[in-house]
This record gives sequence, structure tokens and C-alpha cells, in this order.
Amino acid sequence: MRRDSITGDVIIFSSYRNNRPRDNRPSDNGMGKNIENKVLDEYEKNCPFCLGNEEMNDETTDVINGEKYWECRSVKNKFPILDMDRNSIYGQHEVIIESNRHNANYYNMSQKEFENTFEILKRRFVDLSKVEGIEYVNIFKNSGRDSGASLNHTHSQIISMNLIPPEIIKEIEVSRKFLENSGKHLYENIVETEQIFKKRLVFDGEFFIVFIPYATRYNGEIRIVEKKPGRIDAWSDEHIKEIAYIYKNLFKKWRDYYEDEIAFNNVLHTYPVNFEEEENFRTHFHIIPRKYNFGGFELSTNLFVCGTDPEELADFMRFE
Amino acid sequence: MRRDSITGDVIIFSSYRNNRPRDNRPSDNGMGKNIENKVLDEYEKNCPFCLGNEEMNDETTDVINGEKYWECRSVKNKFPILDMDRNSIYGQHEVIIESNRHNANYYNMSQKEFENTFEILKRRFVDLSKVEGIEYVNIFKNSGRDSGASLNHTHSQIISMNLIPPEIIKEIEVSRKFLENSGKHLYENIVETEQIFKKRLVFDGEFFIVFIPYATRYNGEIRIVEKKPGRIDAWSDEHIKEIAYIYKNLFKKWRDYYEDEIAFNNVLHTYPVNFEEEENFRTHFHIIPRKYNFGGFELSTNLFVCGTDPEELADFMRFE
Repeated sequence: MRRDSITGDVIIFSSYRNNRPRDNRPSDNGMGKNIENKVLDEYEKNCPFCLGNEEMNDETTDVINGEKYWECRSVKNKFPILDMDRNSIYGQHEVIIESNRHNANYYNMSQKEFENTFEILKRRFVDLSKVEGIEYVNIFKNSGRDSGASLNHTHSQIISMNLIPPEIIKEIEVSRKFLENSGKHLYENIVETEQIFKKRLVFDGEFFIVFIPYATRYNGEIRIVEKKPGRIDAWSDEHIKEIAYIYKNLFKKWRDYYEDEIAFNNVLHTYPVNFEEEENFRTHFHIIPRKYNFGGFELSTNLFVCGTDPEELADFMRFE
Repeated sequence: MRRDSITGDVIIFSSYRNNRPRDNRPSDNGMGKNIENKVLDEYEKNCPFCLGNEEMNDETTDVINGEKYWECRSVKNKFPILDMDRNSIYGQHEVIIESNRHNANYYNMSQKEFENTFEILKRRFVDLSKVEGIEYVNIFKNSGRDSGASLNHTHSQIISMNLIPPEIIKEIEVSRKFLENSGKHLYENIVETEQIFKKRLVFDGEFFIVFIPYATRYNGEIRIVEKKPGRIDAWSDEHIKEIAYIYKNLFKKWRDYYEDEIAFNNVLHTYPVNFEEEENFRTHFHIIPRKYNFGGFELSTNLFVCGTDPEELADFMRFE
């Protein structure tokens, strides 16, 4: 039994359960092996995110242009989860189109394409967080059918909202309790622990640390933690270069690990818009493989069975 | 925005998001349409749960015999999530093989097969809950690949544990808060509300009520609530007849609704072994379709977007 230091989740380790007989094969409905979803062409005529199909989108909110064409842009989401109707939960929902290539994905994107993505995410974060009443700006990505993605063309999403999401409230609570009980700041402690222990460490950069968590509800999750307090809106060009470098290298390693371009979610957890406990929280990413489905045990108990050895996975994923 | 009265989850209603363009088809990896997983034969030589393959199992713990063969039996799980090693979380993990037919499932099981299943579940619950140190006995079912099932042969699982799972603690807390705030008992209130409102009601029996919840994190979930306080260990033969009747009819309707035998989880939430607030809780089932995957929004926020209109679904599912 282990506890996830960031979320507080209770994890039951049971690696030998991986040896169970199966007549259901584990999912291979990621982006790679499932032929019907395999994306081969640079252009797809029905894809609203492709170069040349811009009129299929709602309003463009930001763009980074290359020599001839746009390289990365953000648009209003045509099917927003939230809108600005202040009678209910409200906010704005935009899509960041991370490449003009239909067959781009995190497994093959260039350093420049990742830099563009994080640059536009930063700029949209700045704009959306300024709107009156907004308490939190949420960034996430779905990639591949099993991740909840409805469109294959690589994109991230950004949603502002007039409340702090329950998951963020929980993570802040966990860090407060850690301070109460230990007198230490949780995230500082995590960074130090991983640096000293080394065996779960994947990459130790100037601004970010990448590691496989000691315990997580998500089999095979990768975490990236910013070393100093700060939100994406405060990132320098150097931050963006480093985080782009991390994603480019991580996903190359990941493809080798799974021998497949598996479906995944990438989620950014950061400070609420108004937050005064900077030392108590750090901006971090959860990169979540969607290769494994929760079963009835997890759904019924909110306890999690995990079979991935973090040290083994870190060993494979490590890069410089 | 709605709140699930039983779990406290925050749900964002957004039915028109169902109209999004998709180049990823919604999953059809249930038990029906996915040919590689389609179960046709009554017997499968490699299946440890098939009639004649009993030597492939660990010890049998209970059995109901028919005229010639066993009809339903429980065995120790060969790959238990928990065992009785008291150095960590501990407990016992058994499998209930619900039919001797390899091609049985909840969509085609007979009244008698369902009665056998609930009878053995009751008897195993009684036995497992008597073990010293056990605080909770958890019952759930995975059916179809997307539900987390590793074997197709229809089965439920029962796991005792020396702790009360976080999900049950949460549900008990929600019911306590409801009592504090309203002076009423939550589950009594739910039963009365559904009976008066009628539009979400699917079946109103002598012992159980079946309805589509006003709000749930799980698109399309069905709930069954026992009307009076009581655990499965206190069920009479009449309770078992009624619950079997409910499952048999529900799953016929469900197959018609989805035009498919979709993957699902069935989970039973009941009292902890030692619990003295009977009026504050009721035994209930969550029947959870695994047709929809959570995306990065749900994983990052713990907020849920739901597109199913409960009244429309209830209208289709209703039976007498």
C-alpha cells in the first residue's frame, strides 16, 4: 500500500496481477496500431484543424506564423464545455491547434512545434485569466480515441472557469496538510527526495524535474514539476525551450517503451488565479497513459491497483 | 450544473456536445460488436470458469448445484488484489462464476441464474464479513473489455478488506451532511422524490427502486436503491427474487437502448461491517455503462460533463 504524495490517493501495489490469464486483450486503440484511426496524411479534407480549412473554425484568438503559413493557432471551441452565461458555471473554452500537419502528434512533433504550443498556451492563459470572475484556467490534452479525443488532429484545450476545480482544491489541501504535519513544503520536498533518490528520476533540468511517481492511481503516469513557484503566465523563453525539449524527448522514449503510439492525456495543474500560498504549490503536469482501464474495483472503492514499477519505468525513460 | 445527491460530484450538463464532429468513433469494444471478443460457444477449453475446467481454479468456496451440474459457484481468486498478509491492507478476494455457460452474460441470463448469483453473493458476504479485522466487503462486476474484465465468462467479484474504502466514506459523509443541513435522511428523501417525480423512475418494487439519477459522473448510469435499511446479508428469498427480476429486465431493455451488448460495471455499495447509522445509508447499486471514456477535462478537474437526459433514458428503460 502506497499513498500518492500529491493527490493523497491510496494505491495497492500488485505487480503479479499483470500475469493474469486474459481473453480480452489490453486495449490497442491508441493512435498507432488501430488502423481505422491511424493518421497518415498531412491533410484531411474534413478536418477543421487542417491548413486550408480555417473557415470551418470559430474565431481565431491567437496565431504563430511561419514563413508561408500559420504553424500554431488557437480558436474558440465550437462545442464549448462552458460558455460565458453567468447563470451557471461559466468560462471560455478554446482549442490550441499545435501543428498545421494533420499527421503531427506528440510522438513526432519538432522542438519548434512544441515551443509554439507552449507559447500560445501561455498567451491564452494570460488573456483568459484576466476575465472578471475567473478563478481557474485549466489546460489539458486528449490524444487518441481512448483518451476521450473526438478529433485526431493534434490539439490542446484551455478552459477558464469561475470556480476552482475539485481536483485542484484537493491537491492544495494535501499540500497544506503536509505543511501542518511535517513543517515542510510538499513540492520542495518532492523535488529534493527525487533528486537524492535518483531511481525514479527521468530528467533534472534547470526549471523542471521529470520523474515517475512513487504511487499514482494511473498505471504508468509521468510527472513534471516546476522547481520554483510560478505559473505558465510567468514562464520565460528559457522555460518554454526546456519544457518543449522535455516533451520531445519524453514521447520518443515513450513510443519505444510501449512499442506503440498509445493514447494519453496531458494535464496541467497550476495555481488558481488568486492564490497567495506560492510555497505550498507548484505547477505540474500529469502525463497519463490510457492503455489501462479502471475496473469495477477502482470505480466502487476509489482505491487503485497499480502494477507498474516506477523505478523500472524511470530507468527506461531517462534522458539528458 | 447539477450535483449528484449520493456522491456529491459536480456535473456539467451539455447535451449538445454529443453533436461534435468526430473522426474517432465512440467505442464499440463492448461484448457485442467487437468480433474478436464475441463469445459464441457454451464451452471454451481455455476458460477456467467453464463446466469441466474446474481443476483450473483455486479452491471452491460455495456452490449451487442443478440436476446434473453446478449452476453457480464461488472460488478463491487466483490473482487476488488483496490477501490475508496483515502487514498491509488485507482481505479475501473471491470470484462468483454466475453461470456454467461460457456465453452467458447479463443480457441473456435467466431469472434462475440471477437468483443463484445473488444467493451466492449473499452467502459469501456473510462468511467474508465475519473474519476478524474486516471492515468492509465490496462486491462488483466487470463485463466486457472496456470495463476492465480480463475474462469473458460472466462473473462477479467479492473482496473483503480491513478498511472502509474512500468512496464509501465519501457517500456516508454526504448523507451525514444532508441530515445536518435538511434534518432529513438522504436515501429516504431520494426514494420519495423519485416516486413523486416519476419521470426518472424505471421500476418501483416492493424492496427496491430503480431510477436514472438526476446527475451522475457516469453518462447513462442506472441506480438501484434498497428501500429499507439492510445489507445483502439480511436479504430474504423475496429480496433475491425481486433483484433478479430487476436485473433480467433491465439488461433486456439496455440492449435495446444501445442496440448492442455494451461493456459495463455493476457495483454494490453497502454498509461497513460495523455501522450504527442505519437510517443514514441504504444499500444501492451503480450500473455503469463503459461506452464513454473520461477525457482530460474530467481527469484534470474532477468535474464531469454529462450528455444523457435522465428522463429520456428512464422513459425507454421503464418496465413493470
